[in-house]
Amino acid sequence: MSSIAAFGEVMMRLETPGFATLSQSGSLAYSFSGTGVNVASALSRFGHETYLASTLPDNSLGDAALAQLRKLGIGTAFVSRGGRYIGMYFLEHGFGLRPSQVTYTDRLGSSFNTVPRDAGDWERIADAVDAAHFCGITLAMNDLARSQMKQLATAVKRRGGKVIFDCNYRPSLWGEGGHAAAAPHYREMLELADLVFMNEKDALLTLGMPSGGADRLAQLRDLIPQVAKTYGIEAIAGTHRQVNGDNTHTLAGYLYREGTFRFARPSTFSVYDRVGAGDAYASGIIHAWLRGDDPQYAVDFATAAAALAHTVHGDTPLASEADVVKALARTAGDIVR
Amino acid sequence: MSSIAAFGEVMMRLETPGFATLSQSGSLAYSFSGTGVNVASALSRFGHETYLASTLPDNSLGDAALAQLRKLGIGTAFVSRGGRYIGMYFLEHGFGLRPSQVTYTDRLGSSFNTVPRDAGDWERIADAVDAAHFCGITLAMNDLARSQMKQLATAVKRRGGKVIFDCNYRPSLWGEGGHAAAAPHYREMLELADLVFMNEKDALLTLGMPSGGADRLAQLRDLIPQVAKTYGIEAIAGTHRQVNGDNTHTLAGYLYREGTFRFARPSTFSVYDRVGAGDAYASGIIHAWLRGDDPQYAVDFATAAAALAHTVHGDTPLASEADVVKALARTAGDIVR
Amino acid sequence: MSSIAAFGEVMMRLETPGFATLSQSGSLAYSFSGTGVNVASALSRFGHETYLASTLPDNSLGDAALAQLRKLGIGTAFVSRGGRYIGMYFLEHGFGLRPSQVTYTDRLGSSFNTVPRDAGDWERIADAVDAAHFCGITLAMNDLARSQMKQLATAVKRRGGKVIFDCNYRPSLWGEGGHAAAAPHYREMLELADLVFMNEKDALLTLGMPSGGADRLAQLRDLIPQVAKTYGIEAIAGTHRQVNGDNTHTLAGYLYREGTFRFARPSTFSVYDRVGAGDAYASGIIHAWLRGDDPQYAVDFATAAAALAHTVHGDTPLASEADVVKALARTAGDIVR
Amino acid sequence: MSSIAAFGEVMMRLETPGFATLSQSGSLAYSFSGTGVNVASALSRFGHETYLASTLPDNSLGDAALAQLRKLGIGTAFVSRGGRYIGMYFLEHGFGLRPSQVTYTDRLGSSFNTVPRDAGDWERIADAVDAAHFCGITLAMNDLARSQMKQLATAVKRRGGKVIFDCNYRPSLWGEGGHAAAAPHYREMLELADLVFMNEKDALLTLGMPSGGADRLAQLRDLIPQVAKTYGIEAIAGTHRQVNGDNTHTLAGYLYREGTFRFARPSTFSVYDRVGAGDAYASGIIHAWLRGDDPQYAVDFATAAAALAHTVHGDTPLASEADVVKALARTAGDIVR
Amino acid sequence: MSSIAAFGEVMMRLETPGFATLSQSGSLAYSFSGTGVNVASALSRFGHETYLASTLPDNSLGDAALAQLRKLGIGTAFVSRGGRYIGMYFLEHGFGLRPSQVTYTDRLGSSFNTVPRDAGDWERIADAVDAAHFCGITLAMNDLARSQMKQLATAVKRRGGKVIFDCNYRPSLWGEGGHAAAAPHYREMLELADLVFMNEKDALLTLGMPSGGADRLAQLRDLIPQVAKTYGIEAIAGTHRQVNGDNTHTLAGYLYREGTFRFARPSTFSVYDRVGAGDAYASGIIHAWLRGDDPQYAVDFATAAAALAHTVHGDTPLASEADVVKALARTAGDIVR
Amino acid sequence: MSSIAAFGEVMMRLETPGFATLSQSGSLAYSFSGTGVNVASALSRFGHETYLASTLPDNSLGDAALAQLRKLGIGTAFVSRGGRYIGMYFLEHGFGLRPSQVTYTDRLGSSFNTVPRDAGDWERIADAVDAAHFCGITLAMNDLARSQMKQLATAVKRRGGKVIFDCNYRPSLWGEGGHAAAAPHYREMLELADLVFMNEKDALLTLGMPSGGADRLAQLRDLIPQVAKTYGIEAIAGTHRQVNGDNTHTLAGYLYREGTFRFARPSTFSVYDRVGAGDAYASGIIHAWLRGDDPQYAVDFATAAAALAHTVHGDTPLASEADVVKALARTAGDIVR
Repeated sequence: MSSIAAFGEVMMRLETPGFATLSQSGSLAYSFSGTGVNVASALSRFGHETYLASTLPDNSLGDAALAQLRKLGIGTAFVSRGGRYIGMYFLEHGFGLRPSQVTYTDRLGSSFNTVPRDAGDWERIADAVDAAHFCGITLAMNDLARSQMKQLATAVKRRGGKVIFDCNYRPSLWGEGGHAAAAPHYREMLELADLVFMNEKDALLTLGMPSGGADRLAQLRDLIPQVAKTYGIEAIAGTHRQVNGDNTHTLAGYLYREGTFRFARPSTFSVYDRVGAGDAYASGIIHAWLRGDDPQYAVDFATAAAALAHTVHGDTPLASEADVVKALARTAGDIVR
Repeated sequence: MSSIAAFGEVMMRLETPGFATLSQSGSLAYSFSGTGVNVASALSRFGHETYLASTLPDNSLGDAALAQLRKLGIGTAFVSRGGRYIGMYFLEHGFGLRPSQVTYTDRLGSSFNTVPRDAGDWERIADAVDAAHFCGITLAMNDLARSQMKQLATAVKRRGGKVIFDCNYRPSLWGEGGHAAAAPHYREMLELADLVFMNEKDALLTLGMPSGGADRLAQLRDLIPQVAKTYGIEAIAGTHRQVNGDNTHTLAGYLYREGTFRFARPSTFSVYDRVGAGDAYASGIIHAWLRGDDPQYAVDFATAAAALAHTVHGDTPLASEADVVKALARTAGDIVR
Repeated sequence: MSSIAAFGEVMMRLETPGFATLSQSGSLAYSFSGTGVNVASALSRFGHETYLASTLPDNSLGDAALAQLRKLGIGTAFVSRGGRYIGMYFLEHGFGLRPSQVTYTDRLGSSFNTVPRDAGDWERIADAVDAAHFCGITLAMNDLARSQMKQLATAVKRRGGKVIFDCNYRPSLWGEGGHAAAAPHYREMLELADLVFMNEKDALLTLGMPSGGADRLAQLRDLIPQVAKTYGIEAIAGTHRQVNGDNTHTLAGYLYREGTFRFARPSTFSVYDRVGAGDAYASGIIHAWLRGDDPQYAVDFATAAAALAHTVHGDTPLASEADVVKALARTAGDIVR
Repeated sequence: MSSIAAFGEVMMRLETPGFATLSQSGSLAYSFSGTGVNVASALSRFGHETYLASTLPDNSLGDAALAQLRKLGIGTAFVSRGGRYIGMYFLEHGFGLRPSQVTYTDRLGSSFNTVPRDAGDWERIADAVDAAHFCGITLAMNDLARSQMKQLATAVKRRGGKVIFDCNYRPSLWGEGGHAAAAPHYREMLELADLVFMNEKDALLTLGMPSGGADRLAQLRDLIPQVAKTYGIEAIAGTHRQVNGDNTHTLAGYLYREGTFRFARPSTFSVYDRVGAGDAYASGIIHAWLRGDDPQYAVDFATAAAALAHTVHGDTPLASEADVVKALARTAGDIVR
Repeated sequence: MSSIAAFGEVMMRLETPGFATLSQSGSLAYSFSGTGVNVASALSRFGHETYLASTLPDNSLGDAALAQLRKLGIGTAFVSRGGRYIGMYFLEHGFGLRPSQVTYTDRLGSSFNTVPRDAGDWERIADAVDAAHFCGITLAMNDLARSQMKQLATAVKRRGGKVIFDCNYRPSLWGEGGHAAAAPHYREMLELADLVFMNEKDALLTLGMPSGGADRLAQLRDLIPQVAKTYGIEAIAGTHRQVNGDNTHTLAGYLYREGTFRFARPSTFSVYDRVGAGDAYASGIIHAWLRGDDPQYAVDFATAAAALAHTVHGDTPLASEADVVKALARTAGDIVR
Repeated sequence: MSSIAAFGEVMMRLETPGFATLSQSGSLAYSFSGTGVNVASALSRFGHETYLASTLPDNSLGDAALAQLRKLGIGTAFVSRGGRYIGMYFLEHGFGLRPSQVTYTDRLGSSFNTVPRDAGDWERIADAVDAAHFCGITLAMNDLARSQMKQLATAVKRRGGKVIFDCNYRPSLWGEGGHAAAAPHYREMLELADLVFMNEKDALLTLGMPSGGADRLAQLRDLIPQVAKTYGIEAIAGTHRQVNGDNTHTLAGYLYREGTFRFARPSTFSVYDRVGAGDAYASGIIHAWLRGDDPQYAVDFATAAAALAHTVHGDTPLASEADVVKALARTAGDIVR
């Protein structure tokens, strides 16, 4: 098993119970998540030693976040304390025709986005791990966040560690004209990366690559090999998600490696909590890739991990490797007793 | 935007959590609703100034009801205090094959149904509003309720305000032989009304009008124009609801106006809380009718409002006009972030 | 051990959680109680075979009430079903300076107070029991309730069973001039009774007996023996309660029997739930009296039972005889493990 | 109506709320169930007088279990107290692809499985009832449990009561090689039984009977008549269950009697709580069989009872006979008001 | 009765249930408060027409805040929508030796502190009210908040309305050297004010006035008349609070008016929720002052209002005038039924 | 700071909410504790690196326990997985006169008490730590538990680590004649120990040492020096606890070292959750002793830690060193904001 650090902000998720709106309810359940947290947690359950590289305020909220990270089995040696705030988002679960609603507090003022760390920190982290995971959401924050992200990626690369980058482009964070603003930062990360999560949209819109493909699959087959070649990326993976009318989603995952695409059989499943399931797919791919598993197994395993993540409350995948392996063979669950 | 009063009883809804029966559970969630409350709340969210005309006891339960009316944005200047009791109903949510169960306490002893108000009250309310909403459920109560309802409707009419009447015939309230007992009261209200909610059943059974129509749609097309003509009603609207086996309902709404029927495309949607959704449809029609919207837009808007109301806990519609407009274009909701 | 029926209404208690008001909260815990329920439950836990003689509606609320009676170990063979409503009261717990608040729904319309039972019912109940318990609250209801109460008491007496009567005068139920209205009914019950719960106030105000006693204790010592003599009552018991400023109450109980008063040492204890604790005292006395225990032990046991009842949530005493015996020797509780 | 005792262990069910895992949650709902409890509760609601024959520890947990048995309307006169522990299982509800998970505590150390009862107990129980119900789960426990089970069955048989036996083979309880170990005990019970619940798997695997049937239905038609003949069993019934992908189950029940099979129309329904629904089917058959209902009505009634049991939280069926009769004619439930 | 606007920020209070810390719990109750909200709510319950002058974001959190303001009976016509965030604080309730802990999010980025309003707004508000309430907490925010506060106070003064100012100096908001920074702003507000809440500490520390008084009472008697004279203030009021070891607080209130001090008898009471009780005292004084009540009655009424506010969950006083009047005569509460 | 392992069983605590009994409630909160867990958690919060040496079943309950250990900051590298069960206890919180009630499941069948570990495990643990903590509760289990405990203590001692032993004699675990059975095991542990927690009762009853002391303090002063000398123990500490009538406890701690007793000023405080507070005292002493703090500071610090532990829900102390230091100077807590 490997040792992996995930770099990213810890977000406090505050959600109304059931399907109540904030105006109806008077209580909230809270937990702590974020792409880095999700990936580190999932990989920890797959047997890896994981760390989060992040910054939390030195108050009760930071203490609570740290406690949950430990509970998830994530190493906290590289979480620094300082600054004053933690990023938060409020989640109102939709039902049927009514969409879920996310309302953010000010992320840019969070400890993660405002407190500079010593350059030595990045070296120490890079020393301790075989691979590090980064996410495009951090690129959308501010110069400090971007700069720290690149420092750590560079340090890892320099020491021979693997750099994993999930494009994860969020339009609302970049605003209008965001693709142009984002492009140079994305290119820098792609140059450093060994394993990348993206699909044809990232290539078309952020990297501005043209494609004559007739549909998204054709565009994917056209563009992903170009990206791999241009930036010297060892493996690229991603998914196409389709939201169906009957509370199910369909997920079709792929992995491109050594010039070949492998596709998972599209999987359709009931959805209990959608947030964070993309991170489960990524974690499945990372796990299989770090172990050198067969690429077809990798996409199937990652797809099952993603499907399971939709059945668990909270952003953070909780399935063990054994759980995922069992789910690979199952179509519906009864009772295990 | 207009100023509208809804006349009707405030009911306390007490429901067991989840799908528990009263014998299983030990706790209840409570809220305050009623057709008038629901319509006033919905119209308030569509931007109108709304009032409830009702009576509540001067005790803790009445205080709690009043606080919730205010929370919903409903004006309480025309809610009088007096009497001793508030009407209540207990709701046990069914699941699949098991139906939901409603158990009432004694409504006839409620403040609304026992406390006479000064005649001047009705004039003051009529002075303050452009339109008033009435509901057939009140007709099923007792002589006091019926008499007060007609006084207010007459006062509104006299001052040039619009009278809106929802037939809402509840067989369990009228008992056996109820249609005959109800007919004269319904006819009085139809004479006063400018906008009426009903369908072919009300014409056939309550008004005793014959129809040779082969099915309910043919009967609707046959009878509604006759009703409009007989009573001089400007517009008539209603829905056909179908309960499907897979926890979805299908709603087909219509609006008859100036000699023409408009039908909404039948809408099928998952149901979270069925109670009060008919009031959402009515509110959508009232909103569009008061603004003079295109009739086809009116039925589509009202259908979307009703569909959304099925996705929200509680009797009372909470969607804003913007929410409904967005739902007009959607078939399933993911996350908005 | 004996077989005892308690005659009385089952009330649904609906209470806001913690110290919230009805305007603040949105949920209620509910349970079913009443003096008869409380006494039958307490005696059942002391080892007696108990029954409730009452009437419940044949709906979900009645089913839930019946299920709780069974849970409490109360025989339901003499509970008839019929009528439409169950009496209810809403309880908002006070804190410190802020008093608890009780709001009733219409009790007079309840099944218990509106559904006549066959005369044969009373004979069947009287056949089955050694003693029956009655309460002054029922006397305050209506003619039907009073008449049924007296029929049962008479039938029990005729068969040689013991009649127990708790005066339990509630001013709010009788209204102004209530003592005069109540007196003849109270006298009828006292004539039938073998064991009575009352204190000097009942004698002074309801029975209109004068006393020259300087304080309540002197009045008690003066009047209770007169009452016993006048009505031929075997034993009379009662308490003086004092509400202290620091969330404790002080209870001083007495038992008058065979010309002699016995007083319990006044007991001061923290109060968690005050409702129904008087019924626990009565149950302790009844238990000891039916067994022929020493009168001093009876008042001490009853006082400990009452003190324990203040430490348990809900109206209904839950302590077993063993629990009470242990509490007789204790001043504060730590952990039993 | 009849008088029936069910012999079996009371289990404490502890379940996390919603779909949370034990690692995510911090709270549990608990209730008390078991095959005997479920069957006795269901039959009590169908109007029979029922008893549980079992043993509970004399502590707070035993008190709580006993209170719930009473609440369910089950007679507790034959529940003895003793031993130290109650069997427990923890239930984590699955969602979609993720199966539900049951984790047991040590059942073999429970009061039921460790405390011997007087031989006279079995005679007293047999005297009091028309029929007794037994379950294969008890056979899987230990020699004491098996011996007591057979003593009671023999006593009932001797007095002319009916013996009902549900094969209910649980592989995890018998372990590897379990069928061979179980066979002699099953044969003993089948010799005593008048009504048996089983399907072709029990005949094939436990009783080791060969069949040339091409599918499970053919095997059922081949083997069940042989079993009935071999052991002299009056009636045999059972179900085939199919877990579908969309959170519905399909149940196909049969009843073999007097040389003829009757099959219920396969019923497909949404599942809210799956545990204990098999006991509802059995209870429906027992009810109809004890009353001498038409066999086709029996399987239809039992199937509807089982379907309803899937819509109620908890292991224990709560539907009254009237509820089941109404469900026989229904395909989906709306609101009853 | 009067019409009063309170100017101030709406804060979202998020608190862990019971006495749990943020690390222990996973859920939060939330409500919306703030000095302005508290004062407006209390005065609304005393019969006045009240408004909040504030700014809320146009998102789900702002909607929920607005709904609660309406529920409290506060007019929302002067609440503008805009900006992105709402101020929040997390509250962990202490127990005994362990203090309560408040953790803030970034208030300075809130809608209230970042969105400028049209100058015309202040004029419109001033036109509509007889008095306006301001609080020193707003002075501690930023230039925008201070400037808007002074604009509104000036506009109210200019139109002959009353200006009420609560000094409410919070050391943590001003930081080190805060008194000096605060002084000019406080002086500006005192110049405008007709009724001021403060005690000797404000005079000594913020206004830098020397006193030879031997203790806080002597200092109060020395300094308050000087402040009144210097700034031309009609009335000054305040309290001394003492936190006792046994979960009680003692409050001693005063009112200085027309050259005379009136003191309330120090009141000691159990504390359920301490936050916001100072605002209840202020509201009591304002109510009595606006009505022209006797000053001694004013301090007694205000003290009882404050004592009651400690017995209610949440920051916001909920007692009606009748509740306070009853509490004036009470020392401990039993049940009102 | 030091590295410390605590050896002991992880218990699952299941408690009814509020003050409900198991018969009243239907839900339980659960957590995982035990003396070892409590001490390791407290020391982790004081800045030490801590480990638990224990065994947990490899199922969902074991996973949940492990997750909570991690959350508490306890190293889990020395927790082995195996066996089938986790020890449990049910807690019903008493109120006032009604004591709390603890009901255990079968601890002897737990993984900790049934699964042997490799001898190498003890060496590895001993290698990793500066000190190890043991508790008399484990001595009361069975031969396997005792043997493993002594193996680890011996290994730690051999490597020069410190052995800490808390006598913690539980009469209910040892049964009648327990002191005699326990004595040899206690003596073995005392021989190995450097720091011991006990008081005069342990010396008198378990070790059978006579004392002529007139009261417990005199006996303590007489016996503790003898124990220290006899067994060559560097330091001995303990407390006297007194349960007061008003929900407060009084704790008087001592530390005997280098021939001198130091006593903390007796501390009286309100109690929210009593379980585990003794472990907080021990942890305070261990912390100060490992750091070489002044003995008087040690007893004061430990007493404050114990007092704080009574104010937090759950068995496990959560106070940081800073929290304890602040509490040293405080007598009652208000709000920190």
